[in-house]
Amino acid sequence: MDITRRDLFKGSAAVVIAGAIPGVGVAADDPLASWADGPAKRAILDFVRATVNQSSSKFVPPEQRVATFDQDGTLWVEHPLYTQVVYCLERVPVVVKAKPELANLQPYRTVLSGDRDAIAKLTMDDLFKILGATLSGMNVDQFQAEVKQWLDHARDARWKRPYTELTYLPMIEVLNHMRANGYRTYIVTGGGQDFVRVYSEKTYGIPPEQVVGTAGGTTFGYDRTGRPFLTKEPKLLLNDNNAGKPEGIHLMIGRRPFAAFGNSTGDRQMLEYTKAGDGERLSMIVLHDDATREYAYGPATGLPDTKVGTFTQALYDEAKSKGWIVVSMKNDWKRIFV
Amino acid sequence: MDITRRDLFKGSAAVVIAGAIPGVGVAADDPLASWADGPAKRAILDFVRATVNQSSSKFVPPEQRVATFDQDGTLWVEHPLYTQVVYCLERVPVVVKAKPELANLQPYRTVLSGDRDAIAKLTMDDLFKILGATLSGMNVDQFQAEVKQWLDHARDARWKRPYTELTYLPMIEVLNHMRANGYRTYIVTGGGQDFVRVYSEKTYGIPPEQVVGTAGGTTFGYDRTGRPFLTKEPKLLLNDNNAGKPEGIHLMIGRRPFAAFGNSTGDRQMLEYTKAGDGERLSMIVLHDDATREYAYGPATGLPDTKVGTFTQALYDEAKSKGWIVVSMKNDWKRIFV
Repeated sequence: MDITRRDLFKGSAAVVIAGAIPGVGVAADDPLASWADGPAKRAILDFVRATVNQSSSKFVPPEQRVATFDQDGTLWVEHPLYTQVVYCLERVPVVVKAKPELANLQPYRTVLSGDRDAIAKLTMDDLFKILGATLSGMNVDQFQAEVKQWLDHARDARWKRPYTELTYLPMIEVLNHMRANGYRTYIVTGGGQDFVRVYSEKTYGIPPEQVVGTAGGTTFGYDRTGRPFLTKEPKLLLNDNNAGKPEGIHLMIGRRPFAAFGNSTGDRQMLEYTKAGDGERLSMIVLHDDATREYAYGPATGLPDTKVGTFTQALYDEAKSKGWIVVSMKNDWKRIFV
Repeated sequence: MDITRRDLFKGSAAVVIAGAIPGVGVAADDPLASWADGPAKRAILDFVRATVNQSSSKFVPPEQRVATFDQDGTLWVEHPLYTQVVYCLERVPVVVKAKPELANLQPYRTVLSGDRDAIAKLTMDDLFKILGATLSGMNVDQFQAEVKQWLDHARDARWKRPYTELTYLPMIEVLNHMRANGYRTYIVTGGGQDFVRVYSEKTYGIPPEQVVGTAGGTTFGYDRTGRPFLTKEPKLLLNDNNAGKPEGIHLMIGRRPFAAFGNSTGDRQMLEYTKAGDGERLSMIVLHDDATREYAYGPATGLPDTKVGTFTQALYDEAKSKGWIVVSMKNDWKRIFV
């Protein structure tokens, strides 16, 4: 592989601009160069070729070309913790500094202790408390600035690289290839919409308005000078997981996707909803089966399922029975990271 | 004026396709031909010219070019009733047929009586009941088909024309001109998002994913054959009026608009939020002061305010003091309808 990071993003930027023009893409002999030849790669190329071909019965008019991508585990690494959860845990000291009374309360005390084993044992309720405390109460502009600053400095523990560099090259190629063929690419993530929007344009070439995610309410108000601003509230508007994914797609996009990509049970309903549409549709699910180059979890690995990125045997069976494309990271991807 | 409806929409279609390419627009000597020369027309042309000029200090990068438009009273007629309210009132017999026990209950009995004076006196609570009953409980695909069918046949009582033809030509020109200069145009309406999305593309060249409106939740489920579908629920997710407009913009777009257009107090916070952004911003408000060619209501007319499209003296004063452009339909628009 001789694609450098610089080349990739030069290509990506070009596609962002050219992407709205059907048929105009970047010059490339093989738009999915990091994919091994096989049924998964062929299915993507065939789907795109057929749906943009005006003389094909599978043709999809440009305005209807919507493709949705889960993020965590589909576009970038989700193990051992979702990046946004890492952010929230690392924000706890800031929250406690503003509200010192929290220091002796759970789950804050555990987080502040730095005890990794104890932190790993926090319940979902504990995590929701921490998410609520660290993702709300501030001006939306301030939140964006804080996330951006954190991302600039935070490093993944295993790879010692910025989280935004732990994206999967094969999926970036899919994003680029679909955009080059007039598809509008959306992220549809269980992660926080405001969080992902901070880096989605730079990282994936996906602008904020094409990020659908778990979303809280905001409240409009005025500062002391009378200038209006929005405050992030702990009120949940959209839980963009499971059934919330097609519901969120309807709310934010208003069209059924023609292609959808996921990697866990949280994506099941989105993949079902997409595949059930009229005409040619593509649903694809990524199997994490490469413990050496990334991680292995889920049914094909024989390893126990984990809290993060659950991919059950039932989901695997459904994928096979419904004609979704199952992608093996180990076998289908010649290279993992950008 | 020699712009025919056919010419207009040929132009509009061309712009929809070319609109994403900054600097590439439709050839036109005067993109705002139906506007009288004056400060309002000049303000729009100056704003667009400056913000797309790379050597101007007011330059706005293409990806940030977002313009938001209220619909009722800003893009099309809102008197004597919002079109969507007419739709809901006319759907009451269908709802009552399915649930005959409603026939003797208020407000349904009043609506079924056809007594226009009594219907005009329904309270907001009554209207919300009717909206809830007629806009929820069905498959979203079925709802879209029903609205489309209704729009194809319904006629405005005064003009005897389809509602979708009662759009303001000067505002269609603004939409086209902004798109031709790389702006992405959004509707941000107090009206129902699902309702407006049915016709927005054909009527305004605005695709469903660029319609932000009052939105209810949906519920994902499966029909008897196992095929997934979404049902419209009476649960309110976003009341896209007043403070709900900037909140909805943040939720659905995630960027502060550079230009916003409204016509009532329901648009106040959107216009404030837009104008308060950094750099060059345009906020514009349409004054209904033409009783002959359309309707007259609001402060400049000396007429009492109405329930529909409230435009108070306080809003007028705020517009003047904050440098919003106030558009007189009577004086600034040479022609009203497309």
